Amino acid sequence: MSESLKKIDSFVLFGVLGDLSIRKLIPAWYYLERDNMLSDALKILGVGRKDISDKDLKDQVKEVLNKFVSPEYLNPEAVSRLVERFSYCTCDLSKIESYKDLSLKLSDWKKPVTYYLAISPSLFEMVCDGLKGSNLITPDCRIIIEKPIGFDLDTSQEINEKLTRYFDESQIYRIDHYLGKETVQNLITLRFANSLFSSQWNSKGIEYVEITAAESVGIEDRWGYFDGMGQLRDMVQSHLLQLLCLIAMEPPNRLDDQSIRSEKVKVLEALKPLDEESISSNFVSAQYIDGEIDGNQKSGYVNEDGGKTESKTETFVAVKAEIQNWRWLGVPFYLRTGKRMASKTTQIVIHFKSDGHYIFNESKESLRGNTLIISLHPKEGISLKVFTKPHGVDKHSTVRSDPMSLDFIKTQKLLNIPSGYQSLLMDILNGNQSLFLCREEVELAWKWCDDALDAFNQSSQELYYYDAGSNGPTQSEELISNYGHSWHEE
Amino acid sequence: MSESLKKIDSFVLFGVLGDLSIRKLIPAWYYLERDNMLSDALKILGVGRKDISDKDLKDQVKEVLNKFVSPEYLNPEAVSRLVERFSYCTCDLSKIESYKDLSLKLSDWKKPVTYYLAISPSLFEMVCDGLKGSNLITPDCRIIIEKPIGFDLDTSQEINEKLTRYFDESQIYRIDHYLGKETVQNLITLRFANSLFSSQWNSKGIEYVEITAAESVGIEDRWGYFDGMGQLRDMVQSHLLQLLCLIAMEPPNRLDDQSIRSEKVKVLEALKPLDEESISSNFVSAQYIDGEIDGNQKSGYVNEDGGKTESKTETFVAVKAEIQNWRWLGVPFYLRTGKRMASKTTQIVIHFKSDGHYIFNESKESLRGNTLIISLHPKEGISLKVFTKPHGVDKHSTVRSDPMSLDFIKTQKLLNIPSGYQSLLMDILNGNQSLFLCREEVELAWKWCDDALDAFNQSSQELYYYDAGSNGPTQSEELISNYGHSWHEE
Repeated sequence: MSESLKKIDSFVLFGVLGDLSIRKLIPAWYYLERDNMLSDALKILGVGRKDISDKDLKDQVKEVLNKFVSPEYLNPEAVSRLVERFSYCTCDLSKIESYKDLSLKLSDWKKPVTYYLAISPSLFEMVCDGLKGSNLITPDCRIIIEKPIGFDLDTSQEINEKLTRYFDESQIYRIDHYLGKETVQNLITLRFANSLFSSQWNSKGIEYVEITAAESVGIEDRWGYFDGMGQLRDMVQSHLLQLLCLIAMEPPNRLDDQSIRSEKVKVLEALKPLDEESISSNFVSAQYIDGEIDGNQKSGYVNEDGGKTESKTETFVAVKAEIQNWRWLGVPFYLRTGKRMASKTTQIVIHFKSDGHYIFNESKESLRGNTLIISLHPKEGISLKVFTKPHGVDKHSTVRSDPMSLDFIKTQKLLNIPSGYQSLLMDILNGNQSLFLCREEVELAWKWCDDALDAFNQSSQELYYYDAGSNGPTQSEELISNYGHSWHEE
Repeated sequence: MSESLKKIDSFVLFGVLGDLSIRKLIPAWYYLERDNMLSDALKILGVGRKDISDKDLKDQVKEVLNKFVSPEYLNPEAVSRLVERFSYCTCDLSKIESYKDLSLKLSDWKKPVTYYLAISPSLFEMVCDGLKGSNLITPDCRIIIEKPIGFDLDTSQEINEKLTRYFDESQIYRIDHYLGKETVQNLITLRFANSLFSSQWNSKGIEYVEITAAESVGIEDRWGYFDGMGQLRDMVQSHLLQLLCLIAMEPPNRLDDQSIRSEKVKVLEALKPLDEESISSNFVSAQYIDGEIDGNQKSGYVNEDGGKTESKTETFVAVKAEIQNWRWLGVPFYLRTGKRMASKTTQIVIHFKSDGHYIFNESKESLRGNTLIISLHPKEGISLKVFTKPHGVDKHSTVRSDPMSLDFIKTQKLLNIPSGYQSLLMDILNGNQSLFLCREEVELAWKWCDDALDAFNQSSQELYYYDAGSNGPTQSEELISNYGHSWHEE
């Protein structure tokens, strides 16, 4: 936590009427309110284009809560406490006068102020200019942005340049909402508070790592947006590489934001770039075609509403990543993510090396290592596969037959936490940047993805196809089985 | 499994009307029968002093099952199948004619025969002589004996000498019923099928090991027997040292009886003897005095029925054992066992070393290693303590505060297995000696206990006292806390 940053009680939410605010941020505020996490002084100014009153906004916040918080968690007192914190400012973000109005509204608010840009990235520059023009940027204020931070390295650098024109890196909070999840935060504790794991967290102890983020949904109404991105840019560049960083980073000296970020940067720097030569054996991209989920026909990607039949955008990526450093040499990190897959599953699987020698029987099949499965979705939890004696008396006294796998499973009680935004909002208020991305991370991740896409485009490798509702193309299985490994499917 | 040994279907049970047979063996036979584990050809000849008929014995077997098997597990068909296997032979073991009767009864039985001596060790020699005299000992027959195998090294050697006069070591099955327990047998699988554990199963990975066998019962009607033994001879020499062997042994080349026994022997050979000098800091013996369990007054040891007030026999022992070999140098194995303690608990606790450096906070208290708890009683099961992030959002964004312990617990479904005798009986029938003690083990264990008792008697160390219903004397806590460790209490 940077020493200079302190608790902030004035929060401006650009895009208060937008989808992100309604589905995620306002409910997250509610849970924090209900759990008495918010300071009495906290005020939230919603900013939107619509011309509505404070009261209208308050009514809308109430409506949002009734819709997105399940009734048993609704505490009327907490609802009205939260609603009272909200006020509204109508802004046309392209007009200078809007920022003057904003300035006026904020004139008697406690400074500094946090600006949360829950709006399209294309508007970031305009808002920054506007805030600057009305002297709303102070050295202590904070600005929060969501991905996508660009479309590739160049565009991401442009955004970062603009932001850093007005803000110091310590003021900028780049959100990856995956990092707000309990289980993701738990990775740090699991790794560094348990010698049982930490002592083997390297190429001597780990055979390979899988990171899977499978979605069962298709593209739906985001076709236009998604077709410009593709799965690599949309998911790997952000979420999957972040998870990889947390799994692979060296132990930080301290658990403050600077230490953690700098360890993550080191991992990204050590990622081996994919080139034209290596791409064919390390990278699979694919697009879903018509298929079936739970007996329901689902359209292929190009046949979705708004789709274009000639699109070659990938909706699935599997990639074998290698980290070229002391700890991880020779340990594959298999990343896999796709849309319209068999199930919605996000998980990290650590495959520990098995003992080379196996005294229970000689079948190769049995030479299995222990696995630690960290589930982010559909439930958050961790489980550990341990091998034990098959239970009971053996008729032939071959007690020493094949061990069987015993799953130690701990699923977190979710305490009705619907998303990771609560913890991220608290961190923003408290000024802790550990779970936000620094510029270097974002740009290194883009660089690696850009290289992969360039190599793919220059190679003769095809885009493969998979049925909607499947586990991806067969080439994804081959990618990993070629190295003697296999994807863990629940 | 020795190649020469084969399945045996003829079983002679000396002491069929005795306590061990009634409480343990006959119920164990029943469960095997119910689970269709027994060969159709199996016949059991009960031997006893009482002059009763085959039918009387069959009736008594039925009675035993009604008393010692809970009604929901009683399957009338299995009961009658088992009862049919039994016949009876009246024997005065001191009379030569008795063995002739026995020989007659067995004349048309399939050979070889297994002889199970569920009788006092003082009768072993007489029975062996009698069997020999009537030509009932063949090179393939088996003999099964229960502890105590002697009272010290000398007396145990005497018994072994007598046995080996007539039987080869491969024919002798020395039972330690602890080794029949599921969880004890599971130790081998846990250790050698899980690289997560095996890779740290040495002085680099393990800080210390605890083996506790606490009983809540007192001596009851066994005062005379027990006062001659004491807790070290009664429990440590047998059960606790056997558990220590299974925890500490090197990986055997194969999982056959010879390989396992020879690894256990190596552990016992490496046990550092306690001498007059080391005894005071490594050994605590104590006797219980009047106390209270669950609000009920319990008499002290010397005040029990049949007790003598001057007795200095120990009912509690705690000892720090050291294994002087490559794997275990510097790792204490704390053994603890007592009668009339707070609860009946048998467990092994493996304390893994913690990471030296701890980034979560600086309090010493938090430098804890992972623990693997192997419970033998009251439930059988294994649990693993892993540290995780305290759940939920932290108000001050110090997400990185003290990890909390999360217990992965797997309790075995007991499948109505009341004792370890089923699996031991199967092993006897099948001729697998892995879970039985060889002569060398027994004698090395006696040697170590004899040395400890000699050193104690020659030292000025006192016998301590503890309240009935407590965790033993405070000196037991000090024994371990002096080395910076503590007993794991549930």
